[in-house]
Amino acid sequence: MNELIIQKGKNALAASRQLVKLNTEKKDRALSIIAEEIDANREFIKSENIKDLQGGKKKGLTKAFLDRLELNDKRIDGMIKILNDVIALKDPVGEIIGMNNMPNGLKVGQMRMPLGVIGIIFESRPNVCIEVAALTIKSANGVILRGGSDAIHSNLALTSIIKKGLKRAGLPETAVEIIENTNRESVKEMLRMREYIDVIIPRGGLELIRFVEENSLIPVIRHDQGICHTYVDEFAGIDMAISICYNAKVQRPGVCNAMETMLVHEKIAPSFLPRMKIEFDKAGVELRGCKKTKTILRSVKDATQEDWSTEYLDLILSIKTVATIDEAIDHINTYGSHHSDAIVTDNFKNGMKFLTEVDSAACFINASTRFTDGNEFGLGAEMGISNQKLHVRGPMGLRELTSAKYIVFGDGQLRV
Amino acid sequence: MNELIIQKGKNALAASRQLVKLNTEKKDRALSIIAEEIDANREFIKSENIKDLQGGKKKGLTKAFLDRLELNDKRIDGMIKILNDVIALKDPVGEIIGMNNMPNGLKVGQMRMPLGVIGIIFESRPNVCIEVAALTIKSANGVILRGGSDAIHSNLALTSIIKKGLKRAGLPETAVEIIENTNRESVKEMLRMREYIDVIIPRGGLELIRFVEENSLIPVIRHDQGICHTYVDEFAGIDMAISICYNAKVQRPGVCNAMETMLVHEKIAPSFLPRMKIEFDKAGVELRGCKKTKTILRSVKDATQEDWSTEYLDLILSIKTVATIDEAIDHINTYGSHHSDAIVTDNFKNGMKFLTEVDSAACFINASTRFTDGNEFGLGAEMGISNQKLHVRGPMGLRELTSAKYIVFGDGQLRV
Repeated sequence: MNELIIQKGKNALAASRQLVKLNTEKKDRALSIIAEEIDANREFIKSENIKDLQGGKKKGLTKAFLDRLELNDKRIDGMIKILNDVIALKDPVGEIIGMNNMPNGLKVGQMRMPLGVIGIIFESRPNVCIEVAALTIKSANGVILRGGSDAIHSNLALTSIIKKGLKRAGLPETAVEIIENTNRESVKEMLRMREYIDVIIPRGGLELIRFVEENSLIPVIRHDQGICHTYVDEFAGIDMAISICYNAKVQRPGVCNAMETMLVHEKIAPSFLPRMKIEFDKAGVELRGCKKTKTILRSVKDATQEDWSTEYLDLILSIKTVATIDEAIDHINTYGSHHSDAIVTDNFKNGMKFLTEVDSAACFINASTRFTDGNEFGLGAEMGISNQKLHVRGPMGLRELTSAKYIVFGDGQLRV
Repeated sequence: MNELIIQKGKNALAASRQLVKLNTEKKDRALSIIAEEIDANREFIKSENIKDLQGGKKKGLTKAFLDRLELNDKRIDGMIKILNDVIALKDPVGEIIGMNNMPNGLKVGQMRMPLGVIGIIFESRPNVCIEVAALTIKSANGVILRGGSDAIHSNLALTSIIKKGLKRAGLPETAVEIIENTNRESVKEMLRMREYIDVIIPRGGLELIRFVEENSLIPVIRHDQGICHTYVDEFAGIDMAISICYNAKVQRPGVCNAMETMLVHEKIAPSFLPRMKIEFDKAGVELRGCKKTKTILRSVKDATQEDWSTEYLDLILSIKTVATIDEAIDHINTYGSHHSDAIVTDNFKNGMKFLTEVDSAACFINASTRFTDGNEFGLGAEMGISNQKLHVRGPMGLRELTSAKYIVFGDGQLRV
């Protein structure tokens, strides 16, 4: 057992018990002071960040990776904005959801309370520290951050600023803890601390998520890959289908809510697919089609069985032509990752059927899957996007950092 | 890998995808037919149950255990009642929770949907099969039952009747599956079937729960022990405090929501404790006190450190006298099991403080902890009582067998 890591767990738990006593004004004031401190410490943040960038270049990290790692003035402005956005959100802690009178006079209700201590394991982007701390402080949770080695200087710098702000605001500094040790053993240690951590959130690649699921004794909220589909129904408007599919694939192909497979009803395929291909060709999208698709788009590559369960995160798209909406839904439920899936249709019955039967965190009618996002859904900042069904599906915002306990008011009731 | 168990997972998943398409009438009709089948097969149920009872007697199981195992006509009536109770409950599936207009015209809402497939691992009481199947069918979930070896004949008999009812109603029989194999390996197999099971619920002793937590790759809803407290505040009415503490300890000491530790403010202890002891003595409750308590109740046993974290499930009570309400809250949060805890007080501020700061699934003001129960809280039947904070705290009813997915209605919106 690593005593240092355990101590951080104890600290965060004790701090969370203090945070729960605070009203919203006090928590918002702390967030505002943290924003001030970030603004006042721009040079320190950038100089620590340069250490990570230089280390990354030496290690030969990709340009995309180094870009995510960089903290420039624009990104620092972004972190300050997130703090202000979270200040503007309604505080969910203490919200009472219904209060029913029982026949014996008991009043039984539910009250939203913090989950307790959140452990978050994340890779690359150091601004995650600020987004996560803003959400956990406002929701009165303690948090233990465990970032990757590539961003360790940046993460430590940002955490020290958060702690400075908490202290200035009179809140416990230990509400936000960071684990300096970046080896796998420190993650394993966290995953066994069920006495001090209530929920583990892994944000990163599939390998990290599998490791966490296999080693955690603590409930995990999985933030997994996005194998997202758009189904072009036989009753779709072709112009709308083209613009939605184009947006879902091309607008930002490297993210989890981008489309990876397009499903097309065979009745609309002959008129839709050739026009769609012209647009995808312009954008340089590589198409891979099933047999039926290839009777219309003869020149495209074959889609293999593996394609249906691949998250490309790139300008590649697999296409399947289906005979019925049921075949489309079945394909999505079998090969998808229960993330975000859309139907394009003008038919009411098919729209409702898709909504009900597709087993995904976000189901769209006539819109791009790219909208699955805390901000776009009106939640403000987010902890990530959940692929699992327990507790939260889709964007995990401030409210999802709480759960409801029962509260019961009596005047001496006894069980008979 | 055990192919038979995996096949049951596949079956239950496929069945759940069928159930989600059904309206409430069809699901209720199936529950009603199952109730008919139970009534028509009383002799079969009792004759299979006798095999378990005889086996149990041979193995020398305790009288209390054999009592829980027995299925007599009264218990069979109880199972029929539960089916009718669940029919009367509002169907949560498809309920739309809010639908907000976004600035770009998207309508973003949430819709309650089944969790998918529930795996439940339980001990002794065979009527759990009926309660669980009623709840999972109504909430359109598949379920895989894994009961203990002592009740295997009864569990198989009840499951065969459920399947018969499902078939008669035209629903997939495989919506309710049971694992016949009662060794630990079959549990381990279930716990790795993350492709087919969405949630695991262990109901049983601490050892079973630890085994499940340590081996599961699937999210677990822990139904753990109940170390429940009643805190008698300095501003408590003494008569009410006596009746509430007596009820919480004595009315049914063998259950999870019974009181195990009584906390008493030192200002009220001299007038409260001697009168309370008279009542507990009449009921044969063994008292164990801290040092301060023993200055008032000299004759009681010493409470050891271990007593504070023991679930007696018996007529034994540990008593601690505290100097402040903060000391009481701190004791509960440190030694309790986050289940059910009560304050007796006439002081508004202390009541609200207790409600906010005690980190338990159910917090009571001026009522017995014995009320933590699905029926008493107005939920109807329950899957069990959750001790964890993710997804559900306290009684897990029909609604908690669903979670909310996002639904989005557009008219061609694209992300910019």
